[in-house]
Amino acid sequence: ATGDDRGMAGPKVIGIVGGTGRMGQLFAGILERRGHRVLIASRSTALTPEAMVPQCDVVVITVPIAVTEQVIRQVGPLVRKDALLMDLTSLKEFPLNAMLQRCTGSVVGTHPVFGPSVQSFQGQTFVVCPGRGDAWHKWVLDFLCSEGAVIKETDAATHDRHMAIIQGMQHFSTIGLGMALRRLGMKPEALLEYSSPIYRIRLDMVGRILGQDPELYADIELQNRHNAESIGAYVAALRELQNVLATPDRDGFLRFFQEAAAHAGDFCSQAMDETDRLIRTVADSVAKAPAALPTVGLGLLDEHTIITLGPEGTFSHQAALAADAAARVLFVSHVAEVFSTLEVNTLETGGTEG
Amino acid sequence: ATGDDRGMAGPKVIGIVGGTGRMGQLFAGILERRGHRVLIASRSTALTPEAMVPQCDVVVITVPIAVTEQVIRQVGPLVRKDALLMDLTSLKEFPLNAMLQRCTGSVVGTHPVFGPSVQSFQGQTFVVCPGRGDAWHKWVLDFLCSEGAVIKETDAATHDRHMAIIQGMQHFSTIGLGMALRRLGMKPEALLEYSSPIYRIRLDMVGRILGQDPELYADIELQNRHNAESIGAYVAALRELQNVLATPDRDGFLRFFQEAAAHAGDFCSQAMDETDRLIRTVADSVAKAPAALPTVGLGLLDEHTIITLGPEGTFSHQAALAADAAARVLFVSHVAEVFSTLEVNTLETGGTEG
Repeated sequence: ATGDDRGMAGPKVIGIVGGTGRMGQLFAGILERRGHRVLIASRSTALTPEAMVPQCDVVVITVPIAVTEQVIRQVGPLVRKDALLMDLTSLKEFPLNAMLQRCTGSVVGTHPVFGPSVQSFQGQTFVVCPGRGDAWHKWVLDFLCSEGAVIKETDAATHDRHMAIIQGMQHFSTIGLGMALRRLGMKPEALLEYSSPIYRIRLDMVGRILGQDPELYADIELQNRHNAESIGAYVAALRELQNVLATPDRDGFLRFFQEAAAHAGDFCSQAMDETDRLIRTVADSVAKAPAALPTVGLGLLDEHTIITLGPEGTFSHQAALAADAAARVLFVSHVAEVFSTLEVNTLETGGTEG
Repeated sequence: ATGDDRGMAGPKVIGIVGGTGRMGQLFAGILERRGHRVLIASRSTALTPEAMVPQCDVVVITVPIAVTEQVIRQVGPLVRKDALLMDLTSLKEFPLNAMLQRCTGSVVGTHPVFGPSVQSFQGQTFVVCPGRGDAWHKWVLDFLCSEGAVIKETDAATHDRHMAIIQGMQHFSTIGLGMALRRLGMKPEALLEYSSPIYRIRLDMVGRILGQDPELYADIELQNRHNAESIGAYVAALRELQNVLATPDRDGFLRFFQEAAAHAGDFCSQAMDETDRLIRTVADSVAKAPAALPTVGLGLLDEHTIITLGPEGTFSHQAALAADAAARVLFVSHVAEVFSTLEVNTLETGGTEG
């Protein structure tokens, strides 16, 4: 804590290069709510980066990864010596090197490890790689920390190696699953009908990736030089496992599984607890969603079916049987479902006959 | 709705073959709460399946898949002609064939598509494959329905083909990820430090599988004859994608991604909404967990650091600066975090020095 630190408090002029993108907009909104003055320069704004950057206490680079180095080379020399240049690139080695080379002011590399669909930084991870200048580095940490972010400080090369697994290898696996579904002629919706919450979450992960910008994933897969190693290890492991299954070699499978499990160690029980909580969240929302009802034994509904609040043996059940003793009673859990089940059934019947 | 249906109401004597396993215990508990009398026979009980089965209105088979056919052959002929024989096997073709062949009573095949760690059937998916006998089939549907389960009725072969993707292909992918982590010398805990909620969920999925019984996954991977096709399609897709990346062929990657995305279609936006909700659930629990705090800029804590309730500019902040105007202020969101941050810091310091 020095005199410099106290000088860091208060509102700043913050310029976002690429601020019309979704990530730039997210940052602009959060920074403005904190009382900072936010300027934005991009290809589509009247304000150019060249005009904006010299006015700024902080310059944030958030442009597509393919043009990041070029933009840093262009604006880096315009950053004031007392100002901060920082980036949000999902790789850290090349942008940090470029920023340190082209800018004489303070430099911090950050990677928000999430997409722009979040509503706040609360609980989200930021990797922060120190570049140059302690005071601005602390300012960045304080800001992120006060927004509830989880901060991981590390060097750029270590970050990129971890991302080759967290992003490079995992997205590779997921995109491959999506293509396999296509080759097998299997629609995700058809699989969902067979999927309990845990499998629904897994399918949702595939849909989440495939629903996003292909260029973003091209960058993630093609720009990180460490990806070849992690993807190579993954494909080799799968081919080995495929051979074990084709043999078939049950003992070989058990050894393979147990080696992987031994490496994961105690993490497994923590993962089980966390996924159990997620499953309950999804199960509750499935149970509440009227959309889940058409699959519930509708084939058996006929004019002698009465929909009633479950479970069996309640007054509702007795009332249903009193109304039509021969009726098949379909139990539902909430009053709203009585009506939604009825609507769905009516629509279904109408559809079949019309 | 017939006279037979009304005869189906009321408590039953239900015998569970394999009822000492975790899935058997889950069913026993739920059936007993519904007022049924539950008997259990397994290798470790005094009551033998041979003595139990003739007493039962319903016989439920829940034994390891490797001995399922043998157990069905043994107990099938002992099931009364007015009784129901049903199973909970995760494949449906071979058990249903065996049950129909060896038993003259009613037959229903079911697959609860979830593990025994759930606390109820609420929102969980059951696949139900009709075998023989309408009245008992309806009884099974009514029971599951009233417990809040989501029911998918289908034939056994269609079920097994879907499971070759939902379970066979996806678990194959996940077990391979676990082995790749081992080969890369990367501990899941190290990756977690870099992982926002979305990546944390993905890692948790790996830990969840590897933390379970290897024999169960050996059965899932080795017993379904449809797995070879889905796993083959998956490995082929990944090798193609690996080649595209190695070239590197950006346009090829974009085409690959877009073909997979086009097949997934509208499912993607639904998946995005659902995973956004999950991410908020995980982000909230990460934000509340004191365990997340050691990563928050602890390297910068010193004797001039004051932990206070954020955000900047509040009375707490002013009070902190009044106490030590030169202090670096670390903002936290909840009162409990003030203390947990302090404890973690004290422990860390002690650990480094001791």
